[in-house]
Amino acid sequence: MLINCVAYQQGTKLADMPVVQIADYLHRPECFVWVALKDATDAELLEMQAQFGLHELAVEDARHGHQRPKIEEYGDTVFTVMHTIEFSPTDEVRAGEVCVFVGHNFVLSVRNRCTQGFLGVRERAEREPHLLRHGSSFVFYALMDAVVDRYFPVIDMMEQELEGIEDKIFEPGSAKQNIERLYALKRRVGVVRHAVVPLMEATSKLYGGRVPQVCERSQDYFRDVYDHLVRCNATLDGLRDTIGTAIQVNLSMVTIDESENTKRLAAWAGIFAVATFFVGVWGMNFEHMPELKWAYGYPMAFAVIGAVCGLMYWRFRKAGWL
Amino acid sequence: MLINCVAYQQGTKLADMPVVQIADYLHRPECFVWVALKDATDAELLEMQAQFGLHELAVEDARHGHQRPKIEEYGDTVFTVMHTIEFSPTDEVRAGEVCVFVGHNFVLSVRNRCTQGFLGVRERAEREPHLLRHGSSFVFYALMDAVVDRYFPVIDMMEQELEGIEDKIFEPGSAKQNIERLYALKRRVGVVRHAVVPLMEATSKLYGGRVPQVCERSQDYFRDVYDHLVRCNATLDGLRDTIGTAIQVNLSMVTIDESENTKRLAAWAGIFAVATFFVGVWGMNFEHMPELKWAYGYPMAFAVIGAVCGLMYWRFRKAGWL
Amino acid sequence: MLINCVAYQQGTKLADMPVVQIADYLHRPECFVWVALKDATDAELLEMQAQFGLHELAVEDARHGHQRPKIEEYGDTVFTVMHTIEFSPTDEVRAGEVCVFVGHNFVLSVRNRCTQGFLGVRERAEREPHLLRHGSSFVFYALMDAVVDRYFPVIDMMEQELEGIEDKIFEPGSAKQNIERLYALKRRVGVVRHAVVPLMEATSKLYGGRVPQVCERSQDYFRDVYDHLVRCNATLDGLRDTIGTAIQVNLSMVTIDESENTKRLAAWAGIFAVATFFVGVWGMNFEHMPELKWAYGYPMAFAVIGAVCGLMYWRFRKAGWL
Amino acid sequence: MLINCVAYQQGTKLADMPVVQIADYLHRPECFVWVALKDATDAELLEMQAQFGLHELAVEDARHGHQRPKIEEYGDTVFTVMHTIEFSPTDEVRAGEVCVFVGHNFVLSVRNRCTQGFLGVRERAEREPHLLRHGSSFVFYALMDAVVDRYFPVIDMMEQELEGIEDKIFEPGSAKQNIERLYALKRRVGVVRHAVVPLMEATSKLYGGRVPQVCERSQDYFRDVYDHLVRCNATLDGLRDTIGTAIQVNLSMVTIDESENTKRLAAWAGIFAVATFFVGVWGMNFEHMPELKWAYGYPMAFAVIGAVCGLMYWRFRKAGWL
Amino acid sequence: MLINCVAYQQGTKLADMPVVQIADYLHRPECFVWVALKDATDAELLEMQAQFGLHELAVEDARHGHQRPKIEEYGDTVFTVMHTIEFSPTDEVRAGEVCVFVGHNFVLSVRNRCTQGFLGVRERAEREPHLLRHGSSFVFYALMDAVVDRYFPVIDMMEQELEGIEDKIFEPGSAKQNIERLYALKRRVGVVRHAVVPLMEATSKLYGGRVPQVCERSQDYFRDVYDHLVRCNATLDGLRDTIGTAIQVNLSMVTIDESENTKRLAAWAGIFAVATFFVGVWGMNFEHMPELKWAYGYPMAFAVIGAVCGLMYWRFRKAGWL
Repeated sequence: MLINCVAYQQGTKLADMPVVQIADYLHRPECFVWVALKDATDAELLEMQAQFGLHELAVEDARHGHQRPKIEEYGDTVFTVMHTIEFSPTDEVRAGEVCVFVGHNFVLSVRNRCTQGFLGVRERAEREPHLLRHGSSFVFYALMDAVVDRYFPVIDMMEQELEGIEDKIFEPGSAKQNIERLYALKRRVGVVRHAVVPLMEATSKLYGGRVPQVCERSQDYFRDVYDHLVRCNATLDGLRDTIGTAIQVNLSMVTIDESENTKRLAAWAGIFAVATFFVGVWGMNFEHMPELKWAYGYPMAFAVIGAVCGLMYWRFRKAGWL
Repeated sequence: MLINCVAYQQGTKLADMPVVQIADYLHRPECFVWVALKDATDAELLEMQAQFGLHELAVEDARHGHQRPKIEEYGDTVFTVMHTIEFSPTDEVRAGEVCVFVGHNFVLSVRNRCTQGFLGVRERAEREPHLLRHGSSFVFYALMDAVVDRYFPVIDMMEQELEGIEDKIFEPGSAKQNIERLYALKRRVGVVRHAVVPLMEATSKLYGGRVPQVCERSQDYFRDVYDHLVRCNATLDGLRDTIGTAIQVNLSMVTIDESENTKRLAAWAGIFAVATFFVGVWGMNFEHMPELKWAYGYPMAFAVIGAVCGLMYWRFRKAGWL
Repeated sequence: MLINCVAYQQGTKLADMPVVQIADYLHRPECFVWVALKDATDAELLEMQAQFGLHELAVEDARHGHQRPKIEEYGDTVFTVMHTIEFSPTDEVRAGEVCVFVGHNFVLSVRNRCTQGFLGVRERAEREPHLLRHGSSFVFYALMDAVVDRYFPVIDMMEQELEGIEDKIFEPGSAKQNIERLYALKRRVGVVRHAVVPLMEATSKLYGGRVPQVCERSQDYFRDVYDHLVRCNATLDGLRDTIGTAIQVNLSMVTIDESENTKRLAAWAGIFAVATFFVGVWGMNFEHMPELKWAYGYPMAFAVIGAVCGLMYWRFRKAGWL
Repeated sequence: MLINCVAYQQGTKLADMPVVQIADYLHRPECFVWVALKDATDAELLEMQAQFGLHELAVEDARHGHQRPKIEEYGDTVFTVMHTIEFSPTDEVRAGEVCVFVGHNFVLSVRNRCTQGFLGVRERAEREPHLLRHGSSFVFYALMDAVVDRYFPVIDMMEQELEGIEDKIFEPGSAKQNIERLYALKRRVGVVRHAVVPLMEATSKLYGGRVPQVCERSQDYFRDVYDHLVRCNATLDGLRDTIGTAIQVNLSMVTIDESENTKRLAAWAGIFAVATFFVGVWGMNFEHMPELKWAYGYPMAFAVIGAVCGLMYWRFRKAGWL
Repeated sequence: MLINCVAYQQGTKLADMPVVQIADYLHRPECFVWVALKDATDAELLEMQAQFGLHELAVEDARHGHQRPKIEEYGDTVFTVMHTIEFSPTDEVRAGEVCVFVGHNFVLSVRNRCTQGFLGVRERAEREPHLLRHGSSFVFYALMDAVVDRYFPVIDMMEQELEGIEDKIFEPGSAKQNIERLYALKRRVGVVRHAVVPLMEATSKLYGGRVPQVCERSQDYFRDVYDHLVRCNATLDGLRDTIGTAIQVNLSMVTIDESENTKRLAAWAGIFAVATFFVGVWGMNFEHMPELKWAYGYPMAFAVIGAVCGLMYWRFRKAGWL
């Protein structure tokens, strides 16, 4: 589905136009065309391939989707795949895909399985003509920046989730729930890492050494994006590491709790075993058991049992078992 | 066993021919020969060595089999070993082997322990003469692409298997089965990784920097194969990581379950120990136990036991042990 | 908030001045201006940007805060983010931020969320005019050195904390507390690592190979800072590794303790089960149980029970269970 | 002990000779001397040092033994240390050592703590004069190849051992034995890894980039050895990884088994506790317990106990505890 | 404290002299001065700094101590920090420090917290004038070699300690002691690693590529030291890995032991529960229990109980629980 198709010259919008007129603008000097598609059909992609002369393999990647984030050069064109990260209505983390083709006189973005659009990027770009004048590479930067900026709230929420779990990790009784949440969190971190790490590696080639010609004028900006991705990555690594430790610690807490319960139970079991032994003694049928005939034998029996069990209780208490 | 032996010129099939005529075609300009063997005998390999002037060490590798995936240059010839991954009838993952020798005027593929053939590759290539015109390097690409494309369904099935296990991981009672399945899955991931990782490393040398001369014209295509392998590898790494966590989590769940069972049992044991103590008390043989003579002593005994045990039950319930 | 704004020439202080006069000093030869801000407002930062011609992206980073430590070049200016580490009143480790802009004729430092200032650095620098003569790069070094030197006491305290835990790790009964402390310590190590590791990587580019021009004259000094950071990092790695092992060992100790308790309890349970069996025997109602009529049947019963239980006690003792 | 001392010219054997004549052959064109020592004495090594002009440090390494595998250049001479792996009579894996000095006109091999010799290598080399003509570098290759080829059967046996353990890993009752075997296997893998990994790294410098002059003509052959070592290494890595998982899984199985036993026991304990409670009830001495006087009271008691216990048995069965 | 101050010319000792005369010898051709200090005071270090023109930062490092092992160049001078490893009287591993300054005409060594001296090095060097003629770099090598050679016996003792633990790891009852020893051993390995790893990395820059000028003539010797350090490092890595596995295995053994004890106890508990049930049966007070009146009822009861318990014992035995 076509979202937008606009030509820009020296930082200002020239015209909103139908796709068929693209070719008219491509050869004007200082002019570039910015096309945005959403869930593009095969036909749309083929038309774009024809208009911009895109490489067959890149178009195939955009059509199939489910690519790893990457930045590839095909001749003068740069082809980029980025993952978007959104929360689904059921609070699950879901990855969408944005493919961007950048030439010196065009930018084509195709987004798939991704509810949020990039209209904000276009508006921001149009409000800043002095930056938009940098041409297609600035648009490319603005799109990357928008995608990457949306990672931060997701990562923040995962950090909060982890802190929420940590508050409960030393509380007895919540171990099972903790472990389920930690496992789910780890999987979510995995999804975001799959978006961040390959893009970070790819972005590191957009500044410094040999840079694709089309991106050369915006190197400082791409370094800024790279820096954001490095930051994401560091936070994700910290999350992973802490989740791993938390799972281990949680297991330890279960074992410690069980150990304490075992001791408490054992203490009570011991006290009752002794009491049962005593009542068994006076339930024996020997003829010559003088205490059975005493007037106060029965209360005495309770007194003895009470005294012994009390002593045991006190000793277990002192040993920290009760 | 010889499967095919065909000469191509400028992208179109010249002739199906016996092996002995290969030499006639090798020196024609713009012409190359594509030979496919299956479970080749030593004699066949020696004949091929003579026809194409293959290096002794490469031929030995093809004969012995059980090589690691690799890409080696011997003079102008590129020698490649790839692993194929198939499901055996008993649903086991099984690795076969495809060796490919590529020169500027020939392609020789030898497949071993691998039921599925590569006729589809040949048909596809013959249908696209404009690509086949690239010569032997395009055939080489097409074979690699076919081998690598067959990794994806296997990896998908392993991901589904993992999801199946994950659905059960927090269910009590399936721990043993989970752990068996996780272990088997981990081994299968290992088999596929042995196919993917070395091939990925080797393929990275077919584009970009110094590339074997015979592959130079198809660099974009090899980068595409490399990209597929990187994607496989990322998925496999994710699988490995998740399996490791799942094994750990599964162990935690067993411990948690056991801990809960212990508590429940202990609670019941405590209740019965108390009841047994009480019936023991009234089984004692003291002469002066007035309640034994009461008309309603017996039901009172039950009432007392019931009250005490009921109280205990209620407290254990409140503590979450029952 | 402006803390200081001073111009220096050839190592000696020229004048304390208001911000508006900065431009007067920037073009004098051998002269540089050193400005220190604290929790700078947007207006202050914009003024500085104007005065020193700072790059928009760098200023934005300084304004937003929460950056990773890094050293970036924007033209002739070096922009550095460092983390300060302080103990909060509640003994928590807290990270603040110091941003430093260094040009050949100015140094601007902005510190955020950081109670301790850097007046000591300025005083030390003014006392050593032969070093201050090196210009802005020496001030830059002195600031880095001050930040990094403050890491050491924090790391030392964490090492002492770990030693304190280690003293208790083989003591029964403190497992739960140990694991809580180890977990908290691990998180604190993580905070410090986030300050140290990226700064170490960045600092390694300030000596040896291609060095930003403004830092060239103080390479030996930056190598010294780098060396301090490597030392911090090595200690932190050691801490992390030891904490991991300690968590594992702590879990082992819990399991071993539980195993020993289980044995001790089992032994006592066994002894009482046997005693209870015996009193049950003589509580049976058979008519022909001759020992029930013996004069010394009752004490004999105790003697038998005592003998059997004593024997059991002795054997359990020998086996190390009691 | 001197094993052999032979001169070769253009691929054919010139003469078997005493050590003192070595110098006569060293300066003939196209000629080289191949000397093999076993458990060499200091005197023999000093003589060799004098004959071939070996570097003092290399000779010292050969004398002391217990080196890591390595390949070092001393001027024109290449000094190599390799580990041999053999099974001792008690089925233990044992490492020996082979030191090889290679110059353009000599090869000197010294083997220590290693029962199997390398006569086969010499015979094979003499049977293939066209290869032996390559000179000392071919002999060097042949020795490396022989050492490396002997790693494979050892690694295969370790893989079989692991498969043997895996067959038992999910069987209850063999956990202790499994863990002992896994531990022993891991140590053996360690021994072989110490032989393989450093040699692999060293061998990678015998082909491709800058290669010691004496090895230049046999680069393809050294790459083949390297490839074998990479294969060994991959298998060893797989073994290590699987052993680690197997130890973890084995521990899980023990915990699962214990958990199941606990449940089964708890179920039986519960059933008997209930039965014991009932018999205790009818053992109470209340005067007014009408059922005690019933003619069929006794069988009725059994019926009640049987019914209750049967019900419990059935419920435990359904819950999978019995 | 000054230990020695000697001038050498062309490999032979010129004179033992007071510190103040150093300057007289520094400018003689082919002459160098070798000074050894122990636990140097600030005054001594300042004097040395003046005599040899040492860099302020290096001197500060030597004064403060507690550096990481490193090799740094300050102009023509090489500054090295190495750790010595010694056993303390209480068998603890203790690290000391040796700082060495090397110029083309002097060597200054300062050792701190280190009981063993380096007189042996001086004696050996003086006995070998042909090597000492190499000048200060040979002395530097000899000092490094002496420090590194002292690592080996320490590492050997740690390997023996580990073997001692391994002998006990599958013995029941020693788990607690094993884990304490393993933990202590791991910490000791850590101390030695801190000495070895950074020195190894630093030493790798003393041969091969760009080498500090003062070390150029002794490259083969520094490679030998490097090789020793690599060997140390490999052994330490092996130790670490094995300790990790041993801790894990030890935990498994505890769990397995506990599991076996649980089964044994459960079996006995079951047998006694049944016996207690039976004696309870015949302790019931029903009027119509014919067996109570039988002449042989009592022995029959024992026979029944004995038979049932015997059967249970036999079945538990067969199942391997007893």
